[in-house]
Amino acid sequence: MRPVPRSLSSSRMEAFSDGVFSIAATLLVLDITLHPSGTPLEQVLHAWPAYLGYAISFLTIGAAWLAHGAMTDRLTRADMLLLRINLLLLLVIAFLPFPTRLIADALHDTAGERVFVTLYGLTLLTIRLLLFALDAYARREGLYSHDKADEELQTERRELWPVMSGYVIAIVIGLALPTVAVVLYFALAVFLVVPFREARGLLSKRS
Amino acid sequence: MRPVPRSLSSSRMEAFSDGVFSIAATLLVLDITLHPSGTPLEQVLHAWPAYLGYAISFLTIGAAWLAHGAMTDRLTRADMLLLRINLLLLLVIAFLPFPTRLIADALHDTAGERVFVTLYGLTLLTIRLLLFALDAYARREGLYSHDKADEELQTERRELWPVMSGYVIAIVIGLALPTVAVVLYFALAVFLVVPFREARGLLSKRS
Amino acid sequence: MRPVPRSLSSSRMEAFSDGVFSIAATLLVLDITLHPSGTPLEQVLHAWPAYLGYAISFLTIGAAWLAHGAMTDRLTRADMLLLRINLLLLLVIAFLPFPTRLIADALHDTAGERVFVTLYGLTLLTIRLLLFALDAYARREGLYSHDKADEELQTERRELWPVMSGYVIAIVIGLALPTVAVVLYFALAVFLVVPFREARGLLSKRS
Amino acid sequence: MRPVPRSLSSSRMEAFSDGVFSIAATLLVLDITLHPSGTPLEQVLHAWPAYLGYAISFLTIGAAWLAHGAMTDRLTRADMLLLRINLLLLLVIAFLPFPTRLIADALHDTAGERVFVTLYGLTLLTIRLLLFALDAYARREGLYSHDKADEELQTERRELWPVMSGYVIAIVIGLALPTVAVVLYFALAVFLVVPFREARGLLSKRS
Repeated sequence: MRPVPRSLSSSRMEAFSDGVFSIAATLLVLDITLHPSGTPLEQVLHAWPAYLGYAISFLTIGAAWLAHGAMTDRLTRADMLLLRINLLLLLVIAFLPFPTRLIADALHDTAGERVFVTLYGLTLLTIRLLLFALDAYARREGLYSHDKADEELQTERRELWPVMSGYVIAIVIGLALPTVAVVLYFALAVFLVVPFREARGLLSKRS
Repeated sequence: MRPVPRSLSSSRMEAFSDGVFSIAATLLVLDITLHPSGTPLEQVLHAWPAYLGYAISFLTIGAAWLAHGAMTDRLTRADMLLLRINLLLLLVIAFLPFPTRLIADALHDTAGERVFVTLYGLTLLTIRLLLFALDAYARREGLYSHDKADEELQTERRELWPVMSGYVIAIVIGLALPTVAVVLYFALAVFLVVPFREARGLLSKRS
Repeated sequence: MRPVPRSLSSSRMEAFSDGVFSIAATLLVLDITLHPSGTPLEQVLHAWPAYLGYAISFLTIGAAWLAHGAMTDRLTRADMLLLRINLLLLLVIAFLPFPTRLIADALHDTAGERVFVTLYGLTLLTIRLLLFALDAYARREGLYSHDKADEELQTERRELWPVMSGYVIAIVIGLALPTVAVVLYFALAVFLVVPFREARGLLSKRS
Repeated sequence: MRPVPRSLSSSRMEAFSDGVFSIAATLLVLDITLHPSGTPLEQVLHAWPAYLGYAISFLTIGAAWLAHGAMTDRLTRADMLLLRINLLLLLVIAFLPFPTRLIADALHDTAGERVFVTLYGLTLLTIRLLLFALDAYARREGLYSHDKADEELQTERRELWPVMSGYVIAIVIGLALPTVAVVLYFALAVFLVVPFREARGLLSKRS
């Protein structure tokens, strides 16, 4: 019967967060549409910006969910401010389908590419910033349990500055070369999701 | 083996409620669209009423979820009537994306602003009223456990009358000045979400 | 360590079911649209068939969730066939937003009213039939625990034949008088959700 | 206190997965629309390709969820790579509503049928391949507990090669006869969901 002052059970926070993460990820599909002209095969193939946007946003939300899961997994409790930072994070996660829709259109039209790609990049950066804020707050307030080592969380922290810098660089590049920026966002999403160390460890274990 | 007469497990009520809260909040993004005319940058910037509506409704749902969570967290059981009041609350929560879509359009067109903003305000007020009914019923029927102090719930109750009055005043003002009413709804949503006392306590703890 | 032959944990079944119930209920809002002509106030008021369809379908899903919850709450395990009957039920629940959209349009246009209202009624009836099949199968296979009395489930069973008859009568009436049928569907949804005995008990307890 | 190195709790993986499964299944309804011409009854009846696509995709997602549930039910933990394979599976599950929408249109228009039906078949095949990868990885890394027999999982594995072959054959047939391929996809979905052995066992038990 450990005292839990001023806290909602963190399981409730997980349920609501998992809901928003999974819904935002799944709603992305509604904005995939065929390219309006050409043969059926061309309509499917020329819709590649929509698939790319879908993949980047899905993987980014997936990566955010992995990081979020690694945090909440170690939380012993959630205080009132943590719940609010979390709510802000979810507000931005749930917003992501909107700029995703814009870049799918932008890569078709080139008009407006810069503006839409920049908005997209800023949204992705804000997600990482709020994940960082959540982690930093939980650590400062001692909300984490100390009896679990968590490699996922350590990987997140080790990758924080490279990832942040990557987003800032991609956003700046996107002002001149929007398509390059989108490719960088894809690379960052893959980097965030693929556990290179783990994969390497697994490969070397086999050899 | 405490007897639980006439009750569903309250965990099932939480799961369904968390589902509706998170889906309603996430569906809001589907109604964010670019302003139809202007340069790409203008299209993005002039869509501000859609962003504002998104933020107000997301924060209002978030605040309702926090209050709801504080209640269900203390429930020892859920009786048949509580489940029905809860269902009515969820019906209104799930309805919120509709008036949100209307005010995003209304702030563009000015025609119909009053009607749409009033409908929006009435929906927001109804959410608070049903949250109040849920809490009042649970208290009267003795469904809460008594062994947990809950600051979140006490804050909710302390803020009940100021918040209710705020909504009524905003609705009345909206009949003449709809844009002012929308700003007030935003202020109320922020007020409901930001835990001022907690934040102040945190700041003074540091100094 | 009670043996659980051929079963998924029933908690997983609850999670997926709660997901489908809450999403289907919340998606209904996407089909609420303003009436296309008239002053803003008329546009809002003349959209009443959309609100009515939303309320009927939301309450019907809510009532199905209450009945489903009362069943799964008592399940000790879920066998392979139960999971399949449940999947079929969810297929129909998730389908409900489609005929709901149709009746909202139908009540406006009168053309096609009969067809759409009949499709809607058949969907509602199928939901009740599948809920009945789920309950009957679980009872026959001995999947329920016997140590809990459940008034919710007993109320469901007592109301089975009146409710089924109600739907069949409403469907038949709808072939001639579609609007009357819709009103009956609303009455049935309210009847399913409102626990009259409980409410009466509560009132008499007060007096 | 069994050591759980490098793992998120697998319950969190279940929650996110159940979310994506149930949302993807429920979003399918948004793409059901009436056939644009004819009497109301014809509009409803001629929309059969949309109903068929809905049924195939819903049952395919349902079958994937059953297989996924049988796996995660036996997981003692989820390591970093398992979470990533799972994320890839969910990416394809959440993508399914897009090709479903295409085949509903394709069966109407015949133009483009081949391309769209092939894309649909490839998506269905990829889901089975990723489910297989998830199971194979979990087995190889010893993530399953060994104290539970699971008939569901054994049925899945026994059916793996027939099902895979079925999809490959249907995809090849679809290049020439797209409508036949869609019928095969429906047959495969029904085959995956209906537990023939179980049903036969049940029938023989009665006789």
